[in-house]
Amino acid sequence: MGIRSFFSLFLLSVTIPYAMASDPSPLQDFCVAVNNPANALFVNGKFCKDPKLVTADDFFKSGFDKAGNTTNRIGSSVTAFNVDTLPGLNTLGISLVRIDYAPFGQNPPHTHPRATEGLIHFQFNPTRSKAVAFAALSSQNPGVITIANSVFGSKPAIDPIVLSKAFQLDVNVVKNLQTKF
Amino acid sequence: MGIRSFFSLFLLSVTIPYAMASDPSPLQDFCVAVNNPANALFVNGKFCKDPKLVTADDFFKSGFDKAGNTTNRIGSSVTAFNVDTLPGLNTLGISLVRIDYAPFGQNPPHTHPRATEGLIHFQFNPTRSKAVAFAALSSQNPGVITIANSVFGSKPAIDPIVLSKAFQLDVNVVKNLQTKF
Amino acid sequence: MGIRSFFSLFLLSVTIPYAMASDPSPLQDFCVAVNNPANALFVNGKFCKDPKLVTADDFFKSGFDKAGNTTNRIGSSVTAFNVDTLPGLNTLGISLVRIDYAPFGQNPPHTHPRATEGLIHFQFNPTRSKAVAFAALSSQNPGVITIANSVFGSKPAIDPIVLSKAFQLDVNVVKNLQTKF
Amino acid sequence: MGIRSFFSLFLLSVTIPYAMASDPSPLQDFCVAVNNPANALFVNGKFCKDPKLVTADDFFKSGFDKAGNTTNRIGSSVTAFNVDTLPGLNTLGISLVRIDYAPFGQNPPHTHPRATEGLIHFQFNPTRSKAVAFAALSSQNPGVITIANSVFGSKPAIDPIVLSKAFQLDVNVVKNLQTKF
Amino acid sequence: MGIRSFFSLFLLSVTIPYAMASDPSPLQDFCVAVNNPANALFVNGKFCKDPKLVTADDFFKSGFDKAGNTTNRIGSSVTAFNVDTLPGLNTLGISLVRIDYAPFGQNPPHTHPRATEGLIHFQFNPTRSKAVAFAALSSQNPGVITIANSVFGSKPAIDPIVLSKAFQLDVNVVKNLQTKF
Amino acid sequence: MGIRSFFSLFLLSVTIPYAMASDPSPLQDFCVAVNNPANALFVNGKFCKDPKLVTADDFFKSGFDKAGNTTNRIGSSVTAFNVDTLPGLNTLGISLVRIDYAPFGQNPPHTHPRATEGLIHFQFNPTRSKAVAFAALSSQNPGVITIANSVFGSKPAIDPIVLSKAFQLDVNVVKNLQTKF
Repeated sequence: MGIRSFFSLFLLSVTIPYAMASDPSPLQDFCVAVNNPANALFVNGKFCKDPKLVTADDFFKSGFDKAGNTTNRIGSSVTAFNVDTLPGLNTLGISLVRIDYAPFGQNPPHTHPRATEGLIHFQFNPTRSKAVAFAALSSQNPGVITIANSVFGSKPAIDPIVLSKAFQLDVNVVKNLQTKF
Repeated sequence: MGIRSFFSLFLLSVTIPYAMASDPSPLQDFCVAVNNPANALFVNGKFCKDPKLVTADDFFKSGFDKAGNTTNRIGSSVTAFNVDTLPGLNTLGISLVRIDYAPFGQNPPHTHPRATEGLIHFQFNPTRSKAVAFAALSSQNPGVITIANSVFGSKPAIDPIVLSKAFQLDVNVVKNLQTKF
Repeated sequence: MGIRSFFSLFLLSVTIPYAMASDPSPLQDFCVAVNNPANALFVNGKFCKDPKLVTADDFFKSGFDKAGNTTNRIGSSVTAFNVDTLPGLNTLGISLVRIDYAPFGQNPPHTHPRATEGLIHFQFNPTRSKAVAFAALSSQNPGVITIANSVFGSKPAIDPIVLSKAFQLDVNVVKNLQTKF
Repeated sequence: MGIRSFFSLFLLSVTIPYAMASDPSPLQDFCVAVNNPANALFVNGKFCKDPKLVTADDFFKSGFDKAGNTTNRIGSSVTAFNVDTLPGLNTLGISLVRIDYAPFGQNPPHTHPRATEGLIHFQFNPTRSKAVAFAALSSQNPGVITIANSVFGSKPAIDPIVLSKAFQLDVNVVKNLQTKF
Repeated sequence: MGIRSFFSLFLLSVTIPYAMASDPSPLQDFCVAVNNPANALFVNGKFCKDPKLVTADDFFKSGFDKAGNTTNRIGSSVTAFNVDTLPGLNTLGISLVRIDYAPFGQNPPHTHPRATEGLIHFQFNPTRSKAVAFAALSSQNPGVITIANSVFGSKPAIDPIVLSKAFQLDVNVVKNLQTKF
Repeated sequence: MGIRSFFSLFLLSVTIPYAMASDPSPLQDFCVAVNNPANALFVNGKFCKDPKLVTADDFFKSGFDKAGNTTNRIGSSVTAFNVDTLPGLNTLGISLVRIDYAPFGQNPPHTHPRATEGLIHFQFNPTRSKAVAFAALSSQNPGVITIANSVFGSKPAIDPIVLSKAFQLDVNVVKNLQTKF
């Protein structure tokens, strides 16, 4: 039994004729994201593709049934289906992620600045088996702030003396962390 | 006694001087819709007219006191005062419709995808007299999905076997409906 | 030809069975306002009527086709169809008003603190005929602040010296106004 | 490899101490739904469980990895993880469904009145194999209106003459449909 | 002890590296306003500066610790830190004002059309000393409508007969006011 | 020159009479928070005080001009004017904080889960002088998550092996940190 995404294919079969044939202003129904605005104009979020040029491919992305590569330091892999990888999600306020975990792998402490799952959280696979999670977020562009990276890997670097006091760590430990992240 | 739209005329008399004379960024007070964006740029909704070029006509549309033509198959006529016909409504979250009904006419089952009156509903005039309704919707662009048209008139057509099972109709009845809508 | 409100009657015929029969949590579809909360509890807005007790009357209010009495100082009359007079509008973000104008009558300068028609505006009937307007507002409870009443009729009264300076009026003129509003 | 929900378990481990120990008003972080309000009070949505009584079980529901029973007329099964089945989702604006399809099964035309996937849509499995979809919706309580049920199964029933004209069906066909839904 | 704005400087030090290094679509985190859109395109609000060109200066404005000049008719001075003077506030839904009052000075009756502090209000310094207030508003562009200016200083002018009836003032008093505002 | 909060006093003088005398449903204008709901009922946010019992004190909190005590480990002090300390702010979407800094003091890395200033940020006073900041946040209840406390001070504690891998710290360093926060 395969994992199939019927959603995009069939939603589109109703959406496109509707928009093209009967609704004079479809941009509030769908607004397929475009990444390269003309003339260096920017808005909060993304501009929409010309509705006349929208196709089924704008609403489709394969791979939801494929495990990610977890052979890394933390033993996990996040595959995101958000506005950056599936432009048809733009303005819909929704996205999905697939997270694969190696045995004893973790998705380290993080927050999502633009979704309701916004407190600091993490997941840890406490078993000898691989594991997988499917998660939904309340934004097409939830973002992710991995705590350790943001604090110790900031560029330009935060003054190690400041971090030393904030985290009650020896300043040399902080300096060492800043080389790792 | 005539039905007169004083709203647009007088609101404007205050709005325009305010925006022009004292508010350096009036675009959040009004954003008169423009239909033909330059350079094929699109946003969710509509771009605004240059505030300096806004005039009273952008906030005015006559005809609210005129009955629509109900000599059609369903015996009703909807006259919409929304962002497509009255561009000054853009971003205001409001629109009006006048609905005229012939005797025994109906506004068939439909939904509005972008307004709170969003369950499937219809109106039927059960009398031998003409009737009229004035309705307000909580969007400048509420949209309308007429159920029968969307299901049986979709282009490209939905597979009649699918609809046959969904509606428990003989497949030939479905095929016949698809020729009508 | 009579003005008939079909909306409430028929929307209800679909809404109620839907909510009762198939939706386990209908309160986000409709929330008929109740005015007298038990136990002196208050929320921003209004509590909902028990969905099991909702009837067609909660969505119906007659009088939209009746002229208001304009024999008053300003020569106008506002008949409001909002959450206070039509409780089924609660949480729907929409309301209607009928405004009748005597010849040369006015609806004096005012704002609506909870609706997008929120700049100071007024209407004036510059003709020898009666007139009528139907207006929609983007809130079930838009409120109205009549400028002259709020400024000169505030209780407790605003210090006349403050108003004298704000409006560049003689302090005795202000005091006189405060007796009128 | 099993499908495991790590989300609820670990989010909770951070959320609860945070709310209990350091945030004096945690109700805007989570508001676990309670179904039986005291004293017949109702709000748009659901009341929250006393934060002091919240436990891990409020954020956990098993079964996401279990296929639903598709031996029914339409050949599909929807397992919903929304506020009604997983109360910890309340106020978070997100829900998930698992949809299983028999060979040639369908999820018939429907809309979601409280989520952005709100146009009429359906899914059909055009293969001889079983299939499964995981979908996310932008509300903890998106609702579902199955078109055929809502139109032909409404209680009280819609006048068959009205539906006959709306759907261009013989009135006896409509009456027959009304006995099936 | 000086009043220093650390906010902008340090928030930026984290924000910029984050946006540049790790987030492919930073425009929902910050959208620095630009005042002169190319090609006469307008949106509700303001376009964003190219994120690659954003600098610390976009988030900084000095002067919060400096008293304004209150030697004017009303004896007050408002220094605004909003999207027009501090472009980094764009889309953040927040602004600040510093208000200085001469002895017995006032900030005359006004409303903010785009912020929750939206009823008519004023402040009056009833003392022989100077005073200062720091206020926050729930919009980066709250706007201000000074009642007396909007009513009596509207351009084009409102018919004095209308205002005479609305404010119960002699028509010559109204005409005189209209020359002052 | 003293820092005086005129806002609450004078806004109230207009608000209260308005609500009491002319607006039948003032709860959308102000909803003064109450902390102890009757009957163990909870909502997302806070219930409102009976509008008839609202007084000027509900909108007033002194201390904005008083420096906080910065003799602590991090050398800073935050005085918050939010819904918990100034109940009249409820539902208004705005709050203020005063932050005092000792020489070389810091407000350590943190986020606000319910306000737009939501990326990780901090402030540091790099001078030998005391300093003060006034900041506004786009929520009456923005919350604060101090990173170090949330990660290393969570109760129940996060498994030190998980944190060791997430932060690339020796597990004994983590265990030591967990005793400090």
